[in-house]
Amino acid sequence: MKKPFISFTSDFGVQSQGVGVMEGVARSICPDAHIIHLMHGLPDFDIITGARTLETVNWLPIGYHVCVIDPGVGSKRRCLAIKTKRGDYLIGPANGVLIPASRVLGGIVKVVEITNSQYMRELISPIFHGRDIFAPIAAWLAKGTAIEELGPEINLKELIPPPYDEAILSGKEITARVISINKFGSFHLNILSSLWDKLGMQLNEVVELALPNEKIRLMFVKTFSDVIVNDPLIMKDDYGRMEVAINQGHFISKHPLGVGDKIIVRKIEK
Amino acid sequence: MKKPFISFTSDFGVQSQGVGVMEGVARSICPDAHIIHLMHGLPDFDIITGARTLETVNWLPIGYHVCVIDPGVGSKRRCLAIKTKRGDYLIGPANGVLIPASRVLGGIVKVVEITNSQYMRELISPIFHGRDIFAPIAAWLAKGTAIEELGPEINLKELIPPPYDEAILSGKEITARVISINKFGSFHLNILSSLWDKLGMQLNEVVELALPNEKIRLMFVKTFSDVIVNDPLIMKDDYGRMEVAINQGHFISKHPLGVGDKIIVRKIEK
Amino acid sequence: MKKPFISFTSDFGVQSQGVGVMEGVARSICPDAHIIHLMHGLPDFDIITGARTLETVNWLPIGYHVCVIDPGVGSKRRCLAIKTKRGDYLIGPANGVLIPASRVLGGIVKVVEITNSQYMRELISPIFHGRDIFAPIAAWLAKGTAIEELGPEINLKELIPPPYDEAILSGKEITARVISINKFGSFHLNILSSLWDKLGMQLNEVVELALPNEKIRLMFVKTFSDVIVNDPLIMKDDYGRMEVAINQGHFISKHPLGVGDKIIVRKIEK
Repeated sequence: MKKPFISFTSDFGVQSQGVGVMEGVARSICPDAHIIHLMHGLPDFDIITGARTLETVNWLPIGYHVCVIDPGVGSKRRCLAIKTKRGDYLIGPANGVLIPASRVLGGIVKVVEITNSQYMRELISPIFHGRDIFAPIAAWLAKGTAIEELGPEINLKELIPPPYDEAILSGKEITARVISINKFGSFHLNILSSLWDKLGMQLNEVVELALPNEKIRLMFVKTFSDVIVNDPLIMKDDYGRMEVAINQGHFISKHPLGVGDKIIVRKIEK
Repeated sequence: MKKPFISFTSDFGVQSQGVGVMEGVARSICPDAHIIHLMHGLPDFDIITGARTLETVNWLPIGYHVCVIDPGVGSKRRCLAIKTKRGDYLIGPANGVLIPASRVLGGIVKVVEITNSQYMRELISPIFHGRDIFAPIAAWLAKGTAIEELGPEINLKELIPPPYDEAILSGKEITARVISINKFGSFHLNILSSLWDKLGMQLNEVVELALPNEKIRLMFVKTFSDVIVNDPLIMKDDYGRMEVAINQGHFISKHPLGVGDKIIVRKIEK
Repeated sequence: MKKPFISFTSDFGVQSQGVGVMEGVARSICPDAHIIHLMHGLPDFDIITGARTLETVNWLPIGYHVCVIDPGVGSKRRCLAIKTKRGDYLIGPANGVLIPASRVLGGIVKVVEITNSQYMRELISPIFHGRDIFAPIAAWLAKGTAIEELGPEINLKELIPPPYDEAILSGKEITARVISINKFGSFHLNILSSLWDKLGMQLNEVVELALPNEKIRLMFVKTFSDVIVNDPLIMKDDYGRMEVAINQGHFISKHPLGVGDKIIVRKIEK
């Protein structure tokens, strides 16, 4: 029989025992699961970058994916379990962080609010839902517990919206947002490469990028080295969205930008 | 049959192959074990924070827990294997770092000094006992080797004391120590929440905290957001001890403190 | 039946979902494998340090070892699978990074260029070969695919040379290179301890070290504490090579050096 697959994503960083403790709690309940850590180095409380990272679970086996980016822990925000079309379950706080991943997994089949304390650990503190609620819920689902057991169904319309929407194409222009910045100072946009294709750009054509405080021009290429060193570029990133970078350089330190900033991409008329 | 469970904790950080090598060595000896990493981002040689982190193994399945915080490696300090009441084994250097965890696991049943080289790797260097002694010992114990095989029993009185004792309640006052500081600048005290309860504080009552160089007052609350932004607070942390923080702020940069510092908590008479 | 063993090494760091995604992709193809992460905190694009780290796979079970230190990704560099004498397979870019590990595993039995797209994921981007080529190839090999299936054999003479050779002993002198610097500011040399032994040094004898800009003298000892605090030393490191350090100090900040620098060690005549 195939073993269930559980993944964890959080902003706990490397100086927290929380990662190991969540894995241990899940392992106690579901000893046979394969458990992996997608990423725990997310910026603190950054639900935009967190949501974009969680999108990459579509590269993992179908499984039970826990995300703990949870600025509202301790407040009254709800806890969710989402069943998706591909067959995965997403488990985490009801702050929108799970929604973009549910889209790449084919959409939401069912959402419940987690209220059944029978599937939680005893709550010794109001501040570590990753260990006391999300990890145990993932493990119980992995063991075969039905999502309906966890709590009442929630109407899709009641869900808190995702921290970013998909970029919008209008004529020759895409209105987009920065959804993550990587360690090389490059950034990723909420533009799916399939949306980009509708802009009708050929490789090596130039676009204009309206950043918050300036406009720049850059070439649409296949990879970094297709432009000369220190030149900016836009390309399809390695997870199906668009990335802006400088070949062998650091875009963000030259053009300061933050996650969430609005960017407009314009095709230049010849 | 249930698979044995092994955990690793160290100060190796993320720039060391040591973590993977220890796991590989354990896996070679005991291929079936579940192996997890509790935390490897501990401050270098910090046995106080290390001991407090290792306490959290009580959230993991019963298993074989290796801790390598080992400022004395290369010197003549001994190597220990401890059997605890809950059924876990703790393996690491004889510098006190294992003792607080043995308490939360119900106390020590037996301690031996690891001397039987049959269960070690050949020592090619005197400086990596994690790989050459502790990881193999955990794996051999996980395979069913009796602790008595590893070396001579040690009398509890001969053990090096833990790097912190439990805080002491005297009348309206608790004398405590800082046992860890987290990435948000909050700190944790060696006060068990059960000891705190004996102080007779109600939620939202105020206590005085005597820090090394100043006295401050703060409220005892359930979670961060129970005080206004930038106000300090004391609460039960997520592992059964007391935590001091500033709501949405960084306590340590406002009130410089280090791990090991003495703190006195006083109930204020009305 | 024994489960196959897969390891991953990279410069992805802790702020990348790439690590988890590679593991997930391998797990999808070969659900039964044991998968471990040797180290992902390698300096960006540093193939010298990467190669030295990968040498430590000889402490892991025989397995399928992926290394993604890949400054040339996106360019036309080739992808390799190497079968070694010990029985391990090394998978990664053809930039030399795999060669030192192949030596410690007994030498190369066969090398192929990976060209058979049947064993790759569909390439959605030219920049993440770890996920799209190396992880799947490791998993297919682990499942029993023959290396000959992956692509054409390469002649050993066509291989890009390793980023460092073994140090050379000539009379009383060893000409060496720095192959890694650790977080304590100590550095490791491409001198095998077996080569060192041929220099005929006794413990506590002094050698001269010609650094790029100065000459210093230091003692050959067994471990740090064999010299007084703040004194430099040379000793056998914990992976079979030589290490230079300062007891309780930081060598590199006192004597600036980089990975790749040439160092000459001279035995002093009495």
